[in-house]
Amino acid sequence: MTVSFEPRRSIEQVEEGHDLAPKFDEHGLIPVVTTSADTGEVLMLGYMNAEALQKTIETGQAHYYSRSRKILWHKGASSGLLQYVTEMRIDDDQDAVWLRVTIGGDLGEASCHVGYRSCFYRSIPLKPFSEKITLTFEETEKTFDPVAIYGDVPNPTIL
Amino acid sequence: MTVSFEPRRSIEQVEEGHDLAPKFDEHGLIPVVTTSADTGEVLMLGYMNAEALQKTIETGQAHYYSRSRKILWHKGASSGLLQYVTEMRIDDDQDAVWLRVTIGGDLGEASCHVGYRSCFYRSIPLKPFSEKITLTFEETEKTFDPVAIYGDVPNPTIL
Repeated sequence: MTVSFEPRRSIEQVEEGHDLAPKFDEHGLIPVVTTSADTGEVLMLGYMNAEALQKTIETGQAHYYSRSRKILWHKGASSGLLQYVTEMRIDDDQDAVWLRVTIGGDLGEASCHVGYRSCFYRSIPLKPFSEKITLTFEETEKTFDPVAIYGDVPNPTIL
Repeated sequence: MTVSFEPRRSIEQVEEGHDLAPKFDEHGLIPVVTTSADTGEVLMLGYMNAEALQKTIETGQAHYYSRSRKILWHKGASSGLLQYVTEMRIDDDQDAVWLRVTIGGDLGEASCHVGYRSCFYRSIPLKPFSEKITLTFEETEKTFDPVAIYGDVPNPTIL
């Protein structure tokens, strides 16, 4: 069985209705906010293509589309850090998804390929006194060693 | 004074450093997750251009770029629902921003142009029994009347 999406027919249908009629961008992707079901912390912002969205709904495990590797990405399949979805939401105009997840494996809440719990491990100072910004690390210890987990897999960050 | 961004020089600088070196997409935008500082709930997913990112940092009030209206968007300037940023974070590869906000005005936590508290007011069922999905409304009462607040401003949703 493959979950189906409805065509987008009207603003009323999309905003006020019960149809799942997601809007994918020109690359066929929809952004996804993933938060910890335990703490509410934002863990990552990823993207899904239609197949990743379908597989996430069908399996209850988070699937994304990796823009750097250009493949369907079953999160945690290689690291063991599977994301079990406890709740899945879609926004008003159905161009963004929100997942609440718990994380499998023995590495705590780790979600970030750099080794931190959240990808958002640095804060930006507000109303700064200088034009040059200095980020602050809000997480100081990595929850896992990326080299031990990922080995020599290429870093997904693109400059 | 205008906040400055650093050029992206290396993966180490971007992921492990203190420089603010955001990556804007081919449209000059960066996605922004906005959560309630009170409840942790995801309120909206928006976008910033460089100017919106600078103004948010400089003022501590959320500014976005409206993709439908194609203008800098000081959130709440017309509705009174200003978003006061309590914390601002950036992710590992600096291509996504997370804002924690409290909301001004007398309309409660409302963030969504449809009238709900969160834009993510509907859930998607997991492991459904049929191919056709039926969304569930998780918020049942609108916190404000969009017509009263926005009048005849065009709906921002694009089909």
